Amino acid sequence: MKVLWNDRIVDESEVKIDLEDRGYQFGDGIYEVIRIYDGCFYMEKEHLDRLWTSAEKVRLTLPFTRTELSQRLHRLAAEVGLANARIYFQVTRGTEKPRLHDFPDPQEVTPVLLADIQPATRPASKQNIGIRAGFVEDKRWLHCDIKSISLLGNLLALDEAQQKGYDEAVLVRDGNVTEASASNLWMVSGGVLYTHPDGNLILPGIAKLKIRQLAKVLGIELREETFTEKELLAAEECFKTSSVAEIMPIVEIDDQAIGDGMPGPVTKKLLAAYIEAIELAAQAHQNEK
Amino acid sequence: MKVLWNDRIVDESEVKIDLEDRGYQFGDGIYEVIRIYDGCFYMEKEHLDRLWTSAEKVRLTLPFTRTELSQRLHRLAAEVGLANARIYFQVTRGTEKPRLHDFPDPQEVTPVLLADIQPATRPASKQNIGIRAGFVEDKRWLHCDIKSISLLGNLLALDEAQQKGYDEAVLVRDGNVTEASASNLWMVSGGVLYTHPDGNLILPGIAKLKIRQLAKVLGIELREETFTEKELLAAEECFKTSSVAEIMPIVEIDDQAIGDGMPGPVTKKLLAAYIEAIELAAQAHQNEK
Repeated sequence: MKVLWNDRIVDESEVKIDLEDRGYQFGDGIYEVIRIYDGCFYMEKEHLDRLWTSAEKVRLTLPFTRTELSQRLHRLAAEVGLANARIYFQVTRGTEKPRLHDFPDPQEVTPVLLADIQPATRPASKQNIGIRAGFVEDKRWLHCDIKSISLLGNLLALDEAQQKGYDEAVLVRDGNVTEASASNLWMVSGGVLYTHPDGNLILPGIAKLKIRQLAKVLGIELREETFTEKELLAAEECFKTSSVAEIMPIVEIDDQAIGDGMPGPVTKKLLAAYIEAIELAAQAHQNEK
Repeated sequence: MKVLWNDRIVDESEVKIDLEDRGYQFGDGIYEVIRIYDGCFYMEKEHLDRLWTSAEKVRLTLPFTRTELSQRLHRLAAEVGLANARIYFQVTRGTEKPRLHDFPDPQEVTPVLLADIQPATRPASKQNIGIRAGFVEDKRWLHCDIKSISLLGNLLALDEAQQKGYDEAVLVRDGNVTEASASNLWMVSGGVLYTHPDGNLILPGIAKLKIRQLAKVLGIELREETFTEKELLAAEECFKTSSVAEIMPIVEIDDQAIGDGMPGPVTKKLLAAYIEAIELAAQAHQNEK
């Protein structure tokens, strides 16, 4: 598999990760995942913007410009040649020896960039029937707006739900639903679309940005307000969003059906519009070439 | 530098960390640091016990027994030959491709062990004069009892304090002092020693175990109770403890002197007893050889 390693495209076997890379010893890094549709990096600008925001929040000086990073990612995509895929890229703070918690001087230590591309397809059959989730206490840190690789809290939440036989976790902090284990969470109640407001308790999803636009176009009222478990269980519809899952209906939580236990009309309308927006972007990308 | 890589001792240049090692992409791993004094692994059993507890809490199946791990760590120590040092070891959940948040089947994916040894000496000059700290909001996750490598929250807290010109962070959650950025925190108030009780908000320190024993022997009353910033600022003494820093006086917080701004008598008495306990353990270790 070809990967991007800093400014080089190499076979993954050539990559040399230092055992004292701060990514490996401290989870000291940030990442992004962009979905590629027919060669089009969907919402690339927004993903790069968020990477820069994460970097700023963790005080990591990125050793490249947006343009340079974009060019490298596209070079990798051209080399790998997968039209429908996802590109994962992470930047760790690099290696300073010996291991010390203190952030190293950015003049002396260079962050490490790695990117790989894997095939990806729309999870259409799951989107058609929806998934089952369970409530899990949100025990993550109070910087959930940072897309960091220190993800053990997210993993444990997902695993807790899976141990109970569910597909996904719906996280609850202080009585309020925050998000899914790695996706934003939405409900439709009284015909109104709700999701947790941005802030330090959730990740500002890129798919969320798109849903905001689509809701406006479709005339769906959107309120970014907190809601409780009880309110969610009483909702007509529930779904999660992420760049890879797109819009994924959640039809049951803790074994209780949401609405009639099937993907609802607002969810379906948004998904159709989401797919249409992707197709338009991919078409525009083809026309540019 | 020689390192332990799973069951082999190799030069660090031979170590091959997969770019999809879950430690590198998710901070999905746990670790320990043991101080070595005159060849004696100080409180080794307690550190290994804690590693197993962390593993259980993150549902990571360790691919070796306590005895096997201990033998490997001692083999590395014999090879490196540093009498006064610290041994760092971490276990990540291993590599499953492609990257998925879900924990892999432990039957199919083997965790990765890495250990290295670096010289270490008692930070005696700092212990003599103490360090300066600043209050920082504790934004870490609610599993601080797990010694995981997802440490970005700890790093950011330390950096926030350092940005303000302090040596260390004193973390405060919901008005209560929890710990320092990677050490347990203590105060002496009215002649009584206080520290935050164990639970999910702090790491159960191995040095803390020793302080408990020493306080008893020295007739110092110990209360494991929460206390506030205000109570800490009004205390006679403050110190932090960790295996590497041992007992480190904190003589100022947010530019306010604690007590008379010098390491206090209880702190000094405990430090002297702590050092004596180390010397006895190291002596016993020499006699065994």
